Amino acid sequence: MIIQLESNISENATQKIRETLDQLGISHTTIKTQFQHYEVAILKKDIDIRIIGNLEGVKDVHRVTDDYKLVSAKWKVNPTSIDLGDGVVIGGDDFTLMAGPCSIENEEQIEKIADYLYHNNVKIMRGGVYKPRSSPYSFRGLGIDGLKSFYKLCKERGIKIITEVMQVSQIEEMHDYIDIFQVGARNSQNFNLLDELGKVEKPVMIKRGISGSIDELLQSAEYVFSAGNENLLLCERGIRTFEKAYRNTFDINAIPILKEKSHLPVIADPSHGIGIRKHVDKVTLAALAAGADGAIIELHYEPEKAYSDGQQTLSFEEFKRLKAQIEVLKEVV
Amino acid sequence: MIIQLESNISENATQKIRETLDQLGISHTTIKTQFQHYEVAILKKDIDIRIIGNLEGVKDVHRVTDDYKLVSAKWKVNPTSIDLGDGVVIGGDDFTLMAGPCSIENEEQIEKIADYLYHNNVKIMRGGVYKPRSSPYSFRGLGIDGLKSFYKLCKERGIKIITEVMQVSQIEEMHDYIDIFQVGARNSQNFNLLDELGKVEKPVMIKRGISGSIDELLQSAEYVFSAGNENLLLCERGIRTFEKAYRNTFDINAIPILKEKSHLPVIADPSHGIGIRKHVDKVTLAALAAGADGAIIELHYEPEKAYSDGQQTLSFEEFKRLKAQIEVLKEVV
Amino acid sequence: MIIQLESNISENATQKIRETLDQLGISHTTIKTQFQHYEVAILKKDIDIRIIGNLEGVKDVHRVTDDYKLVSAKWKVNPTSIDLGDGVVIGGDDFTLMAGPCSIENEEQIEKIADYLYHNNVKIMRGGVYKPRSSPYSFRGLGIDGLKSFYKLCKERGIKIITEVMQVSQIEEMHDYIDIFQVGARNSQNFNLLDELGKVEKPVMIKRGISGSIDELLQSAEYVFSAGNENLLLCERGIRTFEKAYRNTFDINAIPILKEKSHLPVIADPSHGIGIRKHVDKVTLAALAAGADGAIIELHYEPEKAYSDGQQTLSFEEFKRLKAQIEVLKEVV
Amino acid sequence: MIIQLESNISENATQKIRETLDQLGISHTTIKTQFQHYEVAILKKDIDIRIIGNLEGVKDVHRVTDDYKLVSAKWKVNPTSIDLGDGVVIGGDDFTLMAGPCSIENEEQIEKIADYLYHNNVKIMRGGVYKPRSSPYSFRGLGIDGLKSFYKLCKERGIKIITEVMQVSQIEEMHDYIDIFQVGARNSQNFNLLDELGKVEKPVMIKRGISGSIDELLQSAEYVFSAGNENLLLCERGIRTFEKAYRNTFDINAIPILKEKSHLPVIADPSHGIGIRKHVDKVTLAALAAGADGAIIELHYEPEKAYSDGQQTLSFEEFKRLKAQIEVLKEVV
Repeated sequence: MIIQLESNISENATQKIRETLDQLGISHTTIKTQFQHYEVAILKKDIDIRIIGNLEGVKDVHRVTDDYKLVSAKWKVNPTSIDLGDGVVIGGDDFTLMAGPCSIENEEQIEKIADYLYHNNVKIMRGGVYKPRSSPYSFRGLGIDGLKSFYKLCKERGIKIITEVMQVSQIEEMHDYIDIFQVGARNSQNFNLLDELGKVEKPVMIKRGISGSIDELLQSAEYVFSAGNENLLLCERGIRTFEKAYRNTFDINAIPILKEKSHLPVIADPSHGIGIRKHVDKVTLAALAAGADGAIIELHYEPEKAYSDGQQTLSFEEFKRLKAQIEVLKEVV
Repeated sequence: MIIQLESNISENATQKIRETLDQLGISHTTIKTQFQHYEVAILKKDIDIRIIGNLEGVKDVHRVTDDYKLVSAKWKVNPTSIDLGDGVVIGGDDFTLMAGPCSIENEEQIEKIADYLYHNNVKIMRGGVYKPRSSPYSFRGLGIDGLKSFYKLCKERGIKIITEVMQVSQIEEMHDYIDIFQVGARNSQNFNLLDELGKVEKPVMIKRGISGSIDELLQSAEYVFSAGNENLLLCERGIRTFEKAYRNTFDINAIPILKEKSHLPVIADPSHGIGIRKHVDKVTLAALAAGADGAIIELHYEPEKAYSDGQQTLSFEEFKRLKAQIEVLKEVV
Repeated sequence: MIIQLESNISENATQKIRETLDQLGISHTTIKTQFQHYEVAILKKDIDIRIIGNLEGVKDVHRVTDDYKLVSAKWKVNPTSIDLGDGVVIGGDDFTLMAGPCSIENEEQIEKIADYLYHNNVKIMRGGVYKPRSSPYSFRGLGIDGLKSFYKLCKERGIKIITEVMQVSQIEEMHDYIDIFQVGARNSQNFNLLDELGKVEKPVMIKRGISGSIDELLQSAEYVFSAGNENLLLCERGIRTFEKAYRNTFDINAIPILKEKSHLPVIADPSHGIGIRKHVDKVTLAALAAGADGAIIELHYEPEKAYSDGQQTLSFEEFKRLKAQIEVLKEVV
Repeated sequence: MIIQLESNISENATQKIRETLDQLGISHTTIKTQFQHYEVAILKKDIDIRIIGNLEGVKDVHRVTDDYKLVSAKWKVNPTSIDLGDGVVIGGDDFTLMAGPCSIENEEQIEKIADYLYHNNVKIMRGGVYKPRSSPYSFRGLGIDGLKSFYKLCKERGIKIITEVMQVSQIEEMHDYIDIFQVGARNSQNFNLLDELGKVEKPVMIKRGISGSIDELLQSAEYVFSAGNENLLLCERGIRTFEKAYRNTFDINAIPILKEKSHLPVIADPSHGIGIRKHVDKVTLAALAAGADGAIIELHYEPEKAYSDGQQTLSFEEFKRLKAQIEVLKEVV
């Protein structure tokens, strides 16, 4: 059960609500986000919700039977949009493209790609500075200095930044240089990281775990929301299956299911979702047709020379062709 | 290695080719389909293919390194079309719809749905008369009598029939009453059935196994082709994964991969691919956007009363809406 | 609900039982096996089973809420044993070994291995004469002639035979030359084959499907049982997962689960279950420790020269060492 | 390639080795653990390793072609033992039991279970104080205060502690109160956490990821080892598959594979591996038979009242019975 509280609710009224829940034997949690105050209660049995609804300071009460509550579409029927400022909004009727290299490599690389995005009207650039790598001996990214260059060069071109945060201690140092914090697939259930990302106001995009269920992804989003941050994006990036003909199995079903279960925007990651450069376009178009709010795509001017993920990275030409197809398709969908 | 033989090749010339292969220590198989003669040779090491190419009666020689040979796109670059007669062709630039109930139930049901398809310009009707069911106590279909009614009522309306064949002994009895034999997911590696279906001229659509790999699907198609039947369709119907939010995981990646690896048409089965009625449309559109040649969709005038699979069956209205979306989308794709 | 009928029940009494079930609106199926008569009824709602229990000719009535009925341990608490004659019994306190090559290759091979088994007191030999192969170009077995040699040479040594049957038409031709029909993983849901195997008296061992669920395996066994044959063995042979370090994931959990859910004996197939020769012993011992009733193991005097599956086939020496370990371990377990 | 350095190697000699590698164009990493110094080099092509082997200060050189290096059995053939002090050693010929509740609940609970372990000669107690939970609204553990009580009460009884660490900031605060840091399945690829655990001397047990491959588990261990900590244990706890009859699929194959690929001890977690109380014993015995070095088992005096995981937690009686079976079985294995 989600109890929306009036913004100007008095401390007394809040206290009264909690006491009522206590008397009813209902466990509950107080949640303050950048936008609203809520009391989230876990109902073990059915109650007459008017008991709560009639209390002073209560704006609205919603029964939510899902395990996740605040990210559920059961109480918030209208889709959520994420506003990055300067007119860049994710969610709603548009299909948002984020593109850029797997890894930030150097200033020249950033400039070339940021220029390209600028001239092709792509507003958000991706690029990793902290790279989760299976092997300790692989390139692990340029770190905070790389991020500062990334930020400066994008800022000059009016381009927003999404990049992965891997641990709690990085949040503060990265905060002023990013527009969206990305939580990677391997950290999809790093609950401490999610808790801390609930304390910032910047948007957070959570990738589904490598074999994470749809429910687990929504629960991970619930962690961030319930810790105070409503600015959330969900990302489908493929799951691990028995099939060896490609890297991951892009779960196209997850797109309509997530859109049905949650009010949050859903972003597709076709680059990881299939992992084969020449098919990234088909998976992107499929995700659009299935209802995704956007896609995050790996892009490089010389994919074969990229520090990482070259085999699934589009060239400028390939991206331009895909973007043209998207423009046509999104009018129809 | 695929050796295409001249249609008028002499027995002597054929013999000479086989002897040459024998001398080279290459195992080979003679294949005669309704369209062509081939000698398929399994190369263990590289040879100068001109040795073969220059022999009398050889039309062309192709190196094919895949485990499957005749269904590979490595030797036949142009996509195959399947002609059902009366102007009904699958493959090529169109997106073919096949629709109908999970199970054929009675004449009234067939008529209602066939009429609907006729008026909505859908040329192929699906409907099971032999039903593979997990439990021996479930409804197993009307059998051959049901098929005869199905055929008569569709024939009157100029509608083609696709239906599942479950075992060798059914092939002959079904042969005159169907336009496409469907091999179900559970029989995807029923090699005896595939062998026998290679001996008929009617088209065969092979569904991917419940956890069948893409390569296994192509090898199953190779069984039918190498037994003599080139009229083949491949069907992606979702794979089994850990996810429980839906019935199967529709493998959207399989669409472009199959189109790349093989020259055969690829049909999507979104009904089984997600198993949730309200999302069948999204998965169909996604499959179209990803390059599928058609879709097979469960349809009933009263899905909630269908004998089987009602939860994933579209109503007439839902189908009409989807068809309209497809018409628009296929122009763009 | 399982209604056990008296062996000498009159036709009148049987009729009365069916009518009573009809009046109660309960669907039911009459089943006659080599041992007993049953009426299996599918209860949609609870009834007072004494209504049935008190009817003439009813020996006993059992409520079984599983989807499978006759193979369930809910009505038959004591484990089933399969008697192959000549003192060879599977199930009960012993751990039964079946061993032999993947494929029957020639008489010399049969003799060498049968001799070895004879001298090592292994009573059941495996060996495929019909081989399901992914590729149509692979060796598909020696067929019925191979089986006849296999039978003759084993018979002379008092050794029983288990071999795979791939299609209905083979049942009759194979019948007199085998002791156990094996249904392979790819045919685990070949329902027509299962139905027909229900009509013979010879034991049937059903392998779990490549990604078959435990429930599906039990339902497949229900097919055979409900078609008339109680002589059934279940076989765990590994499932398909994402892991690539071995061939299949042997599902050790399935052993105790199957033993709990069903009264049928459970056989492990460690050769396919891990697919790596040097680890077959560990998986066999694990299966024994987990409660399996036996194991079926690939064995050849020259594994590296075997026609198929050499990489997972034990040599005579390896098998002897494993057998000694089993002897010690089974005393303890 | 792993270059073992003499413990008293001079700075000059070290420098010379690095320069030689640089000149050969080989990337390399300097690693100092609590026991030894290494230079790990990633060979892209083959070299004559005597060039390195003959340099001053080099103790030994080993070619290791695996992606992981220091945890590989290719250079360290003898199995590693982990010494917790006071005669408690994991690895070698014994089978080590660790047992205790899923969550530490209160002092009474700790005392009861620690007393039980003491009297049953179990030397290591498990118990979570930081609990990773899918839902933010679930009980998340008693935290550091709970750990301090846990430590005190175990210390008094001579019992060692293993408990989960969830993030970097907890390492220091937990350090003095634990004997083994456990990395949970959800943090199996939390590379920052692994890096930091490489800087402590206390042993670390890494659980395989929820769908982590065997190679990924070894690479995660490589992270800790290469960051300086050789005291490592690997834990198989079941993987996520399609099967719904139990919680996870315990991967019995992983036991012999890990023992073959790595020199590190392998611990089984049968409680999570099957997730069903009455079958935990079978899976434990199977793991022992397959070669595991020990097991970590959930145990509570009143499983049905445990704060978490009660459905897979053994009672005192069940544990005692299992322990007796283990005692017998380990003599044989």
